[in-house]
Amino acid sequence: MTDAEIFAAHEGGKLSVAVDRPLATKRDLSIAYTPGVAQVSRAIAAEPALAATHTWASRLVAVVSDGTAVLGLGDIGPSASLPVMEGKSALFKTFAGLDSIPIVLDTTDVDEIIETLVRIAPSFGAVNLEDISAPRCFELERRLIEALDMPVMHDDQHGTAVVALAALTNAAKVVGKELGSLKVVIAGAGAAGIAVAEILLTAGVTDVVLIDSKGTLHTGREDLAGMKAEFAERTNPRAVAGGVSHALEGADVFIGVSSSKVPEEDIAAMAEGSIVFALSNPDPEVAPETARRHAAVVATGRSDFPNQINNVLAFPGIFRGALDAGARRITPAMKLAAARAIADLVGEDISAEYIVPSPLDPRVAPAVTEAVMRAAASAVVPGE
Amino acid sequence: MTDAEIFAAHEGGKLSVAVDRPLATKRDLSIAYTPGVAQVSRAIAAEPALAATHTWASRLVAVVSDGTAVLGLGDIGPSASLPVMEGKSALFKTFAGLDSIPIVLDTTDVDEIIETLVRIAPSFGAVNLEDISAPRCFELERRLIEALDMPVMHDDQHGTAVVALAALTNAAKVVGKELGSLKVVIAGAGAAGIAVAEILLTAGVTDVVLIDSKGTLHTGREDLAGMKAEFAERTNPRAVAGGVSHALEGADVFIGVSSSKVPEEDIAAMAEGSIVFALSNPDPEVAPETARRHAAVVATGRSDFPNQINNVLAFPGIFRGALDAGARRITPAMKLAAARAIADLVGEDISAEYIVPSPLDPRVAPAVTEAVMRAAASAVVPGE
Repeated sequence: MTDAEIFAAHEGGKLSVAVDRPLATKRDLSIAYTPGVAQVSRAIAAEPALAATHTWASRLVAVVSDGTAVLGLGDIGPSASLPVMEGKSALFKTFAGLDSIPIVLDTTDVDEIIETLVRIAPSFGAVNLEDISAPRCFELERRLIEALDMPVMHDDQHGTAVVALAALTNAAKVVGKELGSLKVVIAGAGAAGIAVAEILLTAGVTDVVLIDSKGTLHTGREDLAGMKAEFAERTNPRAVAGGVSHALEGADVFIGVSSSKVPEEDIAAMAEGSIVFALSNPDPEVAPETARRHAAVVATGRSDFPNQINNVLAFPGIFRGALDAGARRITPAMKLAAARAIADLVGEDISAEYIVPSPLDPRVAPAVTEAVMRAAASAVVPGE
Repeated sequence: MTDAEIFAAHEGGKLSVAVDRPLATKRDLSIAYTPGVAQVSRAIAAEPALAATHTWASRLVAVVSDGTAVLGLGDIGPSASLPVMEGKSALFKTFAGLDSIPIVLDTTDVDEIIETLVRIAPSFGAVNLEDISAPRCFELERRLIEALDMPVMHDDQHGTAVVALAALTNAAKVVGKELGSLKVVIAGAGAAGIAVAEILLTAGVTDVVLIDSKGTLHTGREDLAGMKAEFAERTNPRAVAGGVSHALEGADVFIGVSSSKVPEEDIAAMAEGSIVFALSNPDPEVAPETARRHAAVVATGRSDFPNQINNVLAFPGIFRGALDAGARRITPAMKLAAARAIADLVGEDISAEYIVPSPLDPRVAPAVTEAVMRAAASAVVPGE
């Protein structure tokens, strides 16, 4: 595709607002607007729960960004992030039939972002945080979940993590290893890396090693704070020190979410039947054809190679399921259920070249929605 | 219409978000989302003006309310105001093809509202303030116009004022009086009353008397502050004191925006060829059939009587015109142009029963849009 095609397709933006019932007659106007609408407003004022059934807020996702970590472009600001957020809204609608509005923020202060979203919260029913830089994104998501009585998820963390878990579940099957027994190395300890580590621990993987620009996270490092310090405690049970080359020796799985390159010899030094997810976009940590010489299963974030790890497999169904279930939180159980639903759709066609469904597979979002709703229904949240 | 019909028509809300270009293939995805969208984001980061042409923000109106003065219901809060804001968005789309999103606020603090809207401002291109109580609405609108580099208008003030001026222009023709020579009494010194007085002064009416719950506004009153004090100076050149009965003696025009009743004898005491706009909804200040016994022209806010003064004649075209013109402000000249365009559409069919077009007249929004664009193009804003 050419630049001209891309810019033409974005001219005027990609979204519009539609009116669900036509306003063609005076009678239509009297029902949808004054005086009829006053009945509905009066009813909601008396019985706030009616807002969930008689406004669009309960089925509306706010796609929120401050533009600090947009795709691979970094901190390009709210206006420049808007085409991405519009694209996200288009994906929500296309794959899950879910309405959403981009809200881009002219502040990068975590306190201000939370304050702002709390103030406009009656306008929508869920928040998809997007393209917000680490480590701010961890604090922002955690505090926003506390502050808002609705589903909140940072998709760069959990969307990626859910799809990575789904893919790894099937890749482990392909190579005949138990998920729980895998030695996993994750290059990148930002939003995606931390979230992938988190979901793998939740799924029962015990040997996870995270790597940042200074080497593996371990309890001997003095330079770690926040989530990195927390994950130095929770991961790396063999206390592997050093860089990616050392960590990959004998490892079963490499997951790259860092954009730093990994040389072929490091991949070659992994265990027999190794699995390589080189997820950086557009340039994978290792070229898939190179990785394939040594690894049994290779996945990337790109659409032009087999096994595309794409968030769109997860987030539309996760939010749709959470909203349809009336869930107040997106729980770890709901994320695991989403990953399992995605993995299960591959079914008997599973192979080294087919460990996740295509992003365009129309079965995915409904299956994830249903799985998330079931998980929401069976959830017992302590203290609630 | 029955309550059941009204509630059924509001179930699930009245709006949805549509995707302007289908995402059916991998290629569609690669253009609208990654990797293609990165080109557009990068271009906007380098050249911010491109946000106006390659996102939906520049054609998107935020319909903003804090729910403090919703229809005749008063301070019912943001969630209960949402059906009204959705209705407003439906009107924007239906009459002017303009996209808009309701933003309802969980704060009534003017500083916080301004701060919040400034923070989310890159998300949209104009602000329609709605159903915000007086006198807070005056300060909020004034400060928001300063704070935001985009068109901002409180429709309860200026939408009403523009349509009232259009109607009065034609009513004056019907009774054969000059607009500038009219003695006008406005009952109600809230959002609508102050704005109607303002636009009448701008249009050349010199004898305007505003009345609040304690009587006429005049410079002898010690209890006035803010806009009321300002308008006590700028109006009432004959220094009329007392209540509505006294003010109406010999007056040419009564404009009611107060919901307080006016007895028949007060209407009867007006000048020959009097004009009565009893705009309170759903209960006019004086029943139109009663007013008609004495007044030459009668208008209301209701759709079941002739001459409905309805904001929908003004706001869709005003915002569409301002946005299409790329205007940074909605100026007095643009409001006057809108009023004239509405009045002119009545044309030769003008009569005591037809001083404004029907709210459903499809000619109105395009005519207002064009008039506002022309006024914007010819504007020379001092200091800019």
